[in-house]
Amino acid sequence: MKKEFKVIPLGGLKEIGKNCTAIDCDGEILIIDCGFAFPEYEMFGIDIVIPDFTYLRDNMERIKGMIITHGHEDHIGSIPYLLQEVNIPIYGGAFTAGLIKNKLDEFDLYADINVVSAGDVFTIGNYTIEAIQTNHSIVDSLAYSIDFPGGRIIHTGDFKIDYSPLDGKVIDLNRLSQLGDEGVDLLICDSTNVLREGYTPSEAVVRKSIDEIFDNNDKRIIIATFASNVHRIKYILESSMKHHRKVAFTGRSMDKSMQLARELGYLLDIPESILVSIDKIKDIPDDKLTIITTGSQGEPMSALTRMANDNHKDVKLKKGDMVVFSSSPIPGNEKVVTQVVNKLYEKRVEVVLASAMDVHVSGHAAREELKIIHSLVRPKYFMPAHGEYRHLIEHARLANSLGMGKDKTFVMSNGDALIVNDDQAKIAENFTSGEDIMVDGYGVGDVGSIVLKDRKTLSQSGLMVIAIAIDQATGSLMSEPQLISRGFVYVQENLDLIEEAKNVVYNSLGCCFEKEIYDEATLVKTIKSDMKAYIYRETKRNPVILPMILYV
Amino acid sequence: MKKEFKVIPLGGLKEIGKNCTAIDCDGEILIIDCGFAFPEYEMFGIDIVIPDFTYLRDNMERIKGMIITHGHEDHIGSIPYLLQEVNIPIYGGAFTAGLIKNKLDEFDLYADINVVSAGDVFTIGNYTIEAIQTNHSIVDSLAYSIDFPGGRIIHTGDFKIDYSPLDGKVIDLNRLSQLGDEGVDLLICDSTNVLREGYTPSEAVVRKSIDEIFDNNDKRIIIATFASNVHRIKYILESSMKHHRKVAFTGRSMDKSMQLARELGYLLDIPESILVSIDKIKDIPDDKLTIITTGSQGEPMSALTRMANDNHKDVKLKKGDMVVFSSSPIPGNEKVVTQVVNKLYEKRVEVVLASAMDVHVSGHAAREELKIIHSLVRPKYFMPAHGEYRHLIEHARLANSLGMGKDKTFVMSNGDALIVNDDQAKIAENFTSGEDIMVDGYGVGDVGSIVLKDRKTLSQSGLMVIAIAIDQATGSLMSEPQLISRGFVYVQENLDLIEEAKNVVYNSLGCCFEKEIYDEATLVKTIKSDMKAYIYRETKRNPVILPMILYV
Repeated sequence: MKKEFKVIPLGGLKEIGKNCTAIDCDGEILIIDCGFAFPEYEMFGIDIVIPDFTYLRDNMERIKGMIITHGHEDHIGSIPYLLQEVNIPIYGGAFTAGLIKNKLDEFDLYADINVVSAGDVFTIGNYTIEAIQTNHSIVDSLAYSIDFPGGRIIHTGDFKIDYSPLDGKVIDLNRLSQLGDEGVDLLICDSTNVLREGYTPSEAVVRKSIDEIFDNNDKRIIIATFASNVHRIKYILESSMKHHRKVAFTGRSMDKSMQLARELGYLLDIPESILVSIDKIKDIPDDKLTIITTGSQGEPMSALTRMANDNHKDVKLKKGDMVVFSSSPIPGNEKVVTQVVNKLYEKRVEVVLASAMDVHVSGHAAREELKIIHSLVRPKYFMPAHGEYRHLIEHARLANSLGMGKDKTFVMSNGDALIVNDDQAKIAENFTSGEDIMVDGYGVGDVGSIVLKDRKTLSQSGLMVIAIAIDQATGSLMSEPQLISRGFVYVQENLDLIEEAKNVVYNSLGCCFEKEIYDEATLVKTIKSDMKAYIYRETKRNPVILPMILYV
Repeated sequence: MKKEFKVIPLGGLKEIGKNCTAIDCDGEILIIDCGFAFPEYEMFGIDIVIPDFTYLRDNMERIKGMIITHGHEDHIGSIPYLLQEVNIPIYGGAFTAGLIKNKLDEFDLYADINVVSAGDVFTIGNYTIEAIQTNHSIVDSLAYSIDFPGGRIIHTGDFKIDYSPLDGKVIDLNRLSQLGDEGVDLLICDSTNVLREGYTPSEAVVRKSIDEIFDNNDKRIIIATFASNVHRIKYILESSMKHHRKVAFTGRSMDKSMQLARELGYLLDIPESILVSIDKIKDIPDDKLTIITTGSQGEPMSALTRMANDNHKDVKLKKGDMVVFSSSPIPGNEKVVTQVVNKLYEKRVEVVLASAMDVHVSGHAAREELKIIHSLVRPKYFMPAHGEYRHLIEHARLANSLGMGKDKTFVMSNGDALIVNDDQAKIAENFTSGEDIMVDGYGVGDVGSIVLKDRKTLSQSGLMVIAIAIDQATGSLMSEPQLISRGFVYVQENLDLIEEAKNVVYNSLGCCFEKEIYDEATLVKTIKSDMKAYIYRETKRNPVILPMILYV
């Protein structure tokens, strides 16, 4: 008889970000991916968002290891935070492992990182795991088939079907089909592009466009793309070489990614001689130079944004340069990317966007590709993953349209558990916490809704602080009230308002003192409400009012 | 001999928003449009942005009037702010005039508003103006041909070419052609969609899709669209009628827009009997009801967002409802719209987006339509308007590709002047201020970069206030330092940090007092820098530190 197993998504459902899933079977826990998410709108001052690890913390001694599908931040970014609590072996592709190691170095952490390749079968506790080749916008992406006493799960990771990837390593559809023949209990599958009809084009399409851009082009070409997309960068290098151009990299993540790619031998065909350090580009003619840069998402401190703002130490943009965005704006980044584009136009730089030319393709499977996976794997149960609510729902509907029973399709929330036994599968809602844990500086989870609400209020209208010293014995005012404001009005130009505000304080105090009220709570409350009313009447603004009473 | 004339864009260039242009000729000024812009990213707490009216203020007595192309906020929104300084007659289409009147009522202002129709010719001072029919996403959109001693300008306003608009009033291409025959000195033309190839589809396409949605549909249909798009709302009403549905409106701007449309007779074919008040929808079966709502842009307080958040008084969404977004997200709104869509999915509502079905078309001309206008008007000079920098540049390139000389094409900035005389046209850069004037509550222009920077800093890490009372005579501390923080850490959970921070204050003071330093500036500076260092070391955060010294 099979044993019961649980699948507990701790992150990555109803969001795109912080993917992390635990499998719990026969007393042993296996973790798949451990990413972070970028802060949502109105998460003021938050650096990143990580999964709530309560369940893992509470069952620490049962965790046997972690397998990682690929090296994007939404799959590896939270590893240091988890490792600070529990040190477990990590398994992933070579490039993935390299990125994780770099990340752990920054946190001064060490872990037992094991490199696996497509086709490898390895065991973690009772789990027998097979790595399966996939295609994605980063090298060494893997799906996993996970066998254990309770059954078999296939987790696709992020993937697309690319029949012509640069390295020739096509997603192993055949193996997925064989596993389907043998029987798969649960499929956990990427839902990102379920709203897109048809197929996601191959990277070969981009390669062709890049070649076209280089043909008969005498401009200096600056290409912004994702630092981790080693394949794309490799054919930009190849195309540059073919067109007798030197290549310079700029941007911290680009430098690190390229160093790793070279260490792993992924750039073996590229002679060192075509590379030039970014601080040595001055003497190279425009038509002999390609610059590959970070900043395709309009990140404020990135190399491309610095170029657009005339802040880049080595690259001064000029009329006649060409900037290619080999990328699409990630949802939410549209506006900042547009700002950078407009600044480039101001410099009379020629801008090539993916919306006008095929210089970018997605890394995620569209509807027809998803249908192929469902048809090959033919799982008993299905859990759509890696998507906002709308993506999960539409992916569930897609599976249902292919014959998967509605009662066997599970659209879940982070923190729910899918409990599967011989007879059935069912969701245990709120099995553990699926909360967002916000990281701000060193603080993990210490910024909650109250602090965030304060930050929002402060951002809208600023604040006014009123400090007052009162004689403890006589209850009389010991000095003129002091008023300071920040983010409210520019005081130099509003001296009358501030002067009148002082009178408001005197009046509030006068009213209280007349009734022989001297206690802090009442004084604070009275000043606050009188001042709030005065300020709103005069300015229609609602700054935070902070009275402070010092009894001397 | 012709006289010199100036065209001074005060808003609307290198941005999409706050359109406002002044023509200055022979001692008389004419204003075209007077809109506001929504605040940009990081304009914390700002309500709207209006043009800098300095030039108009300085030449107040020479302003003869204002003509308005259509009633969108980016063309009428700043009128109250200008009218508070100078009362001038306003001319515009009937719906435009109605919207302006509503707006002025809110500000308790009165103006001489004159309704004009396509084909009307009227004079304002020395200016002879002809209103020309156009098509746009709001009724009564007009272009203007402006004749004056110095020449003739054609200003297209926002437009598209729609051969099958609901009211049959096709843009008057013939008249534009005739004016082109007679000679046009300057064309000022909408650039919004210059990056789109081909033609913008007709509203008739949307009509067809709306009909398809209603056919054989037994769901309750909720359609979110722009309140001012009277035509679109009218055919939603017609389609509802045809399918035996009652219609309820919800959302304040929707109610006001519909009231105005009815007053103007634009809904004459629609019997009152098919309308039902939103608070009376309870007894109407789902398949007999359409709800038309505001909120297509995910605005936080809009009717649709309230429905999605379960906060709408009259509409409780349920499984089986259908929500149609007859709209596209305006750039920058993508994320908030997506948030609403995901909430609708959570309610198992069927969502129809314009990306999946033709339930929305743009109101702006794409490239092929722009080519038609240029070919008909054949102006001597060309000024692309209504667009970000990239749109203006691409529109200039488009005109150049059609034969317009580069030296006759003027990509300008707000505040520049185009000075045209018999011989030539040239740009006078920074002729007047083209600044953004930020409105926050009653404050117009009083929030500057310092206040905004403070708001940003406060939003990122909050603040800590430290109040200290010192004896003026002896220089000794008169009470325990008081510390208050907001938006920094949750104090209840960080008592140790706050307690230790107090010690930091005692240390800072001790160091100063030891050196017999008691002046406010040095004490504030010392406490600030010591506290900043301590907080950063402990938390890696940078709250605003505000020491306040009371000498008692």
